[in-house]
Amino acid sequence: DQPLTLIAGPCQLESFEQGLEIGAALKEACDRSGAQFIFKASYDKANRTSAGGVRGMGMAAGLDALGRLRETLGVPVLTDVHAAEHCAPAAEAVDILQIPAFLCRQTDLLIAAGETGAVVNVKKGQFLAPWDMPHVIGKIESTGNTRIMLTERGASFGYNTLVADMRSLPTMMKTGYPVVMDATHSVQQPGGLGGASGGQREFAPVMARAAVSLGIAAVFIETHPAPDTAPSDGPNMIPLAQMQDLIGDLMAFDALAKTNPIRL
Amino acid sequence: DQPLTLIAGPCQLESFEQGLEIGAALKEACDRSGAQFIFKASYDKANRTSAGGVRGMGMAAGLDALGRLRETLGVPVLTDVHAAEHCAPAAEAVDILQIPAFLCRQTDLLIAAGETGAVVNVKKGQFLAPWDMPHVIGKIESTGNTRIMLTERGASFGYNTLVADMRSLPTMMKTGYPVVMDATHSVQQPGGLGGASGGQREFAPVMARAAVSLGIAAVFIETHPAPDTAPSDGPNMIPLAQMQDLIGDLMAFDALAKTNPIRL
Amino acid sequence: DQPLTLIAGPCQLESFEQGLEIGAALKEACDRSGAQFIFKASYDKANRTSAGGVRGMGMAAGLDALGRLRETLGVPVLTDVHAAEHCAPAAEAVDILQIPAFLCRQTDLLIAAGETGAVVNVKKGQFLAPWDMPHVIGKIESTGNTRIMLTERGASFGYNTLVADMRSLPTMMKTGYPVVMDATHSVQQPGGLGGASGGQREFAPVMARAAVSLGIAAVFIETHPAPDTAPSDGPNMIPLAQMQDLIGDLMAFDALAKTNPIRL
Amino acid sequence: DQPLTLIAGPCQLESFEQGLEIGAALKEACDRSGAQFIFKASYDKANRTSAGGVRGMGMAAGLDALGRLRETLGVPVLTDVHAAEHCAPAAEAVDILQIPAFLCRQTDLLIAAGETGAVVNVKKGQFLAPWDMPHVIGKIESTGNTRIMLTERGASFGYNTLVADMRSLPTMMKTGYPVVMDATHSVQQPGGLGGASGGQREFAPVMARAAVSLGIAAVFIETHPAPDTAPSDGPNMIPLAQMQDLIGDLMAFDALAKTNPIRL
Repeated sequence: DQPLTLIAGPCQLESFEQGLEIGAALKEACDRSGAQFIFKASYDKANRTSAGGVRGMGMAAGLDALGRLRETLGVPVLTDVHAAEHCAPAAEAVDILQIPAFLCRQTDLLIAAGETGAVVNVKKGQFLAPWDMPHVIGKIESTGNTRIMLTERGASFGYNTLVADMRSLPTMMKTGYPVVMDATHSVQQPGGLGGASGGQREFAPVMARAAVSLGIAAVFIETHPAPDTAPSDGPNMIPLAQMQDLIGDLMAFDALAKTNPIRL
Repeated sequence: DQPLTLIAGPCQLESFEQGLEIGAALKEACDRSGAQFIFKASYDKANRTSAGGVRGMGMAAGLDALGRLRETLGVPVLTDVHAAEHCAPAAEAVDILQIPAFLCRQTDLLIAAGETGAVVNVKKGQFLAPWDMPHVIGKIESTGNTRIMLTERGASFGYNTLVADMRSLPTMMKTGYPVVMDATHSVQQPGGLGGASGGQREFAPVMARAAVSLGIAAVFIETHPAPDTAPSDGPNMIPLAQMQDLIGDLMAFDALAKTNPIRL
Repeated sequence: DQPLTLIAGPCQLESFEQGLEIGAALKEACDRSGAQFIFKASYDKANRTSAGGVRGMGMAAGLDALGRLRETLGVPVLTDVHAAEHCAPAAEAVDILQIPAFLCRQTDLLIAAGETGAVVNVKKGQFLAPWDMPHVIGKIESTGNTRIMLTERGASFGYNTLVADMRSLPTMMKTGYPVVMDATHSVQQPGGLGGASGGQREFAPVMARAAVSLGIAAVFIETHPAPDTAPSDGPNMIPLAQMQDLIGDLMAFDALAKTNPIRL
Repeated sequence: DQPLTLIAGPCQLESFEQGLEIGAALKEACDRSGAQFIFKASYDKANRTSAGGVRGMGMAAGLDALGRLRETLGVPVLTDVHAAEHCAPAAEAVDILQIPAFLCRQTDLLIAAGETGAVVNVKKGQFLAPWDMPHVIGKIESTGNTRIMLTERGASFGYNTLVADMRSLPTMMKTGYPVVMDATHSVQQPGGLGGASGGQREFAPVMARAAVSLGIAAVFIETHPAPDTAPSDGPNMIPLAQMQDLIGDLMAFDALAKTNPIRL
């Protein structure tokens, strides 16, 4: 099995320069630890809790910046798409199209993403059982595209709370597709701050390590040089300065997990 | 307070004739019971569990049929929209645009719906607390449109199960907007049949009555002459032949509830 | 069907005099509204959130007071039992032994309660599905006692929150035994105040009315002349002065529900 | 930090000989892997799903057998207690009294267990948030006994399902007391087989490994030479023949976790 991939970056791309600072630091940290690296950033936050939430650079400027980051950093880039017609332009700038969890059952979006030929990373909906993901996969596969990744990002657990069920990871692994643990959003507290979502940043490394110990393909972590001043998801993001240590920690567990695969 | 409104029709519009048969029967039943009536049907099921699920008549033919049903039946018509660019054309054919629960936080869709000036009925997401709906409302109100309805359709409760929290109804009523109980989907078992969603049709009248007794504005019920042969949501839909009795039952509880308003 | 029974009283019996004040006021209110009445009080709170919580009068003094209240008020009395050896003495003082929700699967307690021949009211555990109650019933029936009542008091819904599933009521009615809605505890927020449980008193009448509209046998409500100074469950209890209006409200819905029985 | 402790044995003690066979095999496996070992067995299953469930050897014979197993095996023994008056006799035969999850808020039982001076292992209730455990701890500490262990065994997640929240482990570790992961019961499906609880045996090693990677003190696993013929919890128990490999696997993750402690 391949070593762990880190999918990381800021929640929101604020500028090319911000992306470069974060991406370069993460690439260096991954190189040093033997991890593979995919840069992640959103050019538009289309589902903020409230209308006043900052939405980002917008599509044209955002995709342009992501395309230049891909070239400059020399790493694959992932971004999320929220409408079918955004898939084709996004797929020209980035390598991986991510389907947001709320949208994981929107057939048109899944098919438009699949048709680009890009890798499609689907986040499992907070309302979806892991054994129902094959239906989601089937929608993408119907386009002939089998470059698919599946991400656990927590399930609804009462109000304003998510819980990450570890059984979800091996269950989704049985599909044969790479499975990702989103350690950032699985500890989110949706709507927990009134007009914004709260979070429990301190638990992201906990969820990441538990998941990596099960031999998953990748871990998804949002990070920022100064999370508390970030325009979105600040309460969940890990300070960039802590990422090197965290990656090192995860790589140690990954090596052990990959030599001791879980068999269901 | 006004008497109860019934929002009802088939899950999926199969043809103008099917819509006319169901709509005429419901209109007559509502007239006889003193209920207000809104005809409901979807022209496209964009979020079926699996890719093989029948999606409906499609947008052009579906909206055309809905527009003719509005004229022929002489009642307001509601349909659901799944993409921002569908809002304007849909608003020409129908009176009420419904935002599906999975999409209740998609800012672009909410704003596009609001901008049509049509009534917007938002279904509360299975992942959303009722006290977080004011943020959803704010996105629509930001367009200047305050013709808004709020629908309870159940919250995620473990895997493949929803639960309808009765506290949600008075909590949403506090916003001042009309509150609707979706008695059909709150007893859905998402993904519970493998490649399709299961349901517990026998509980829909139970949920409807409990909710109506709290003095809500409207109840949403899907119905079909032959639910077990319907292309979608069959396990939840109530046989059309039972609707007259159900409406009469609900109107009795509505009259009592409206003369005894709940005060929180 | 018989008219609604109100099971009501203070969470904790503080003294004979307190019980008499509350019981007499409730009896008068029920008589005026045509409701049946069962006086409820606990002589010992054995499962307080924290060790510092006041536990009550204790068994000997508490049962003595309950026995005298039964005589003086001339109504059936219900109390909860927490250990098998308490069932026999409690059954001499009261008419109905209540099994707390946490203990609804403790075989020895269920059997000891059943063997007294008293009515046994089992609260469905926060962790139990309504369709699993027949196993609980079977333990009591194994003693030859079929004087059984079943109470819904909410199911765990994430942390520190309960949700009352209305489907639970008709599901439990199918057993043929009388079904009770505990409107007080189903809106409890377990542990929500740190060292004590919080609650949402304003929702108790909401839950009561929704449940009564389904034709249940009884509603369980805790009340106190001054809830905010009560030794336990204050945040959930309804002020005694509001009970007359609430009972009247519920009786109107009960009459309508009993003439329109739900059929599953 | 100390190496991982394995708390293991059959769900139900069927005989001294059965206990000896299982205990000896586990002790040898633990010795070989460097794990500490505590033998676990119940002498009475007081909360079976249905009255017909086999309850075990009974108290006198069961405690006698457990006491002899402690001597013969030369390891600490754990058993669960369901009534206050059972604590003192049980504490003479075993080293650790376990409070069942349903009973984790029963003050009298916690105090009786604490007063024996034995170690008290409390399973967190399926209805309890991890941050509410300090109140449970306080009840035991009020006896002067601070030999306490805390066990995660899953939280209610809809009906007939549990979910183990990994955040619970570091949250409980903050109390300073040893934290145990019950890998067997956190994958239980309560009532899921009708008259008995179902389970997902294949996930027990998954939950164990994820939890051990977080640096917990102990893992609790039920095992049996022939789980499918065991009188209770068969669907969750791991075949005894697989335990050596599982312990070895967990010890590798434990060593890595103990040298890389999680800091919240």
